[in-house]
Amino acid sequence: MDAYKTIVSLRAVRQFQDTPIPDDALHRILQAGRMSGSSKNTQPWWFVVIRDAEARLRLSKCGDFASHLIGAPLVIGIVFDPQYYRGEFDSGRAVQNMMLAAWASGIGSCIASMHREGDAKAVLGVPAEYRMQHVLSFGYPVPQPGDTIEGKPRASVLKRTGRKPMEDIVRYERW
Amino acid sequence: MDAYKTIVSLRAVRQFQDTPIPDDALHRILQAGRMSGSSKNTQPWWFVVIRDAEARLRLSKCGDFASHLIGAPLVIGIVFDPQYYRGEFDSGRAVQNMMLAAWASGIGSCIASMHREGDAKAVLGVPAEYRMQHVLSFGYPVPQPGDTIEGKPRASVLKRTGRKPMEDIVRYERW
Repeated sequence: MDAYKTIVSLRAVRQFQDTPIPDDALHRILQAGRMSGSSKNTQPWWFVVIRDAEARLRLSKCGDFASHLIGAPLVIGIVFDPQYYRGEFDSGRAVQNMMLAAWASGIGSCIASMHREGDAKAVLGVPAEYRMQHVLSFGYPVPQPGDTIEGKPRASVLKRTGRKPMEDIVRYERW
Repeated sequence: MDAYKTIVSLRAVRQFQDTPIPDDALHRILQAGRMSGSSKNTQPWWFVVIRDAEARLRLSKCGDFASHLIGAPLVIGIVFDPQYYRGEFDSGRAVQNMMLAAWASGIGSCIASMHREGDAKAVLGVPAEYRMQHVLSFGYPVPQPGDTIEGKPRASVLKRTGRKPMEDIVRYERW
C-alpha cells in the first residue's frame, strides 16, 4: 500500500477475524519495530510475541480496556529499559512502525495500556527492572457496518475520525 | 512509495539541501501527525512550524546534538500536554508518522532532543505547563558518499544500520 495512505488511514481495530497472522506478515511487523530509530540508537526494546489463548486472556485482565486481546490471533508485548533516555518516546515510535507495517498488509491492531503493569509483566516473566506499559493486538479486521456503502469504501471515512482541526494544533513560527 | 519499504528504510538525515519544503509536502507531514492515534484519542499535541533562520539557530543551542536544525529548511517543534496519560509515548507515535510521511516524499528528517527544554520553550513562547522534549528538522538529503555505487543504490544499505539482530530483541510466548 502507498505509504502516505497507510499512515493517514490507520485506525485502532478491536474486532478481529480468527484467521491466523502468516509468518511473513509477523516478520514484517517485527522488522518494522526492529528498524525503528531511537535516541542514540540505543534500541531500548524487546518484543514478546504471544499467540497462546490463556496468556492473552490473562493479559486482557491487566488493562482497563484490554478485552480486544482475547480475540486477537497475535499479541505483542512492548518491553523497554527505562534506564535509557527516551525509552517511552522511542517505544511509541517502534509501536507506530509495527502498526503501520501491519496495516500495509491489511492487518488491524490496537494498543492496550497495561494499567496493572506488574501483573502483566508477571504473566510473561518480564524482568522487574524493565517496563511493559503496552501490549498490542493484531488481526484481520472484522468488517464493520459503515466501512462500505454498497460494497465500496466509504468516501467520507476521513470525516469520521474525530481528529482536532488542523488550525487547533498547528502554530507558525511562534506559539 | 511503498509503505513497508518506507518504514524499514527510514534513517536519520542530518545534512540538508537548501531546497525549501513545498507546501503540499508540509501539509502531508502535518496531516500525518494530526491523524496519529493517541490514548483515548486525547491528541495531546501541538506542532510549531519554524522556518525562520534565527529561531532555528537559537533552538540548535538548546540541545546537545541539535546543530542539524541550523541547516534545515523546515523545523517542527513537538509540544504535548503532560496531564494526559501517555503524552510522551503518543508524541513518539506522531513523530514517527511525520518522519515517515516526509520520507515517502523523499524528505529526510532528524529528531533533536531539547536537553535545555526551558530555553527551547522560551524561543517559541510555549506555555510553561506544556512539554517540548523534541524538535524535528526536515529537508531534502544531501547525497552521501556510500549511498550509491556507480550511481546505483547500494544494495547492502540495510546492513549498515547497526540494528540489533532480531533474536536479541524478540521473545516467543515468554520472556
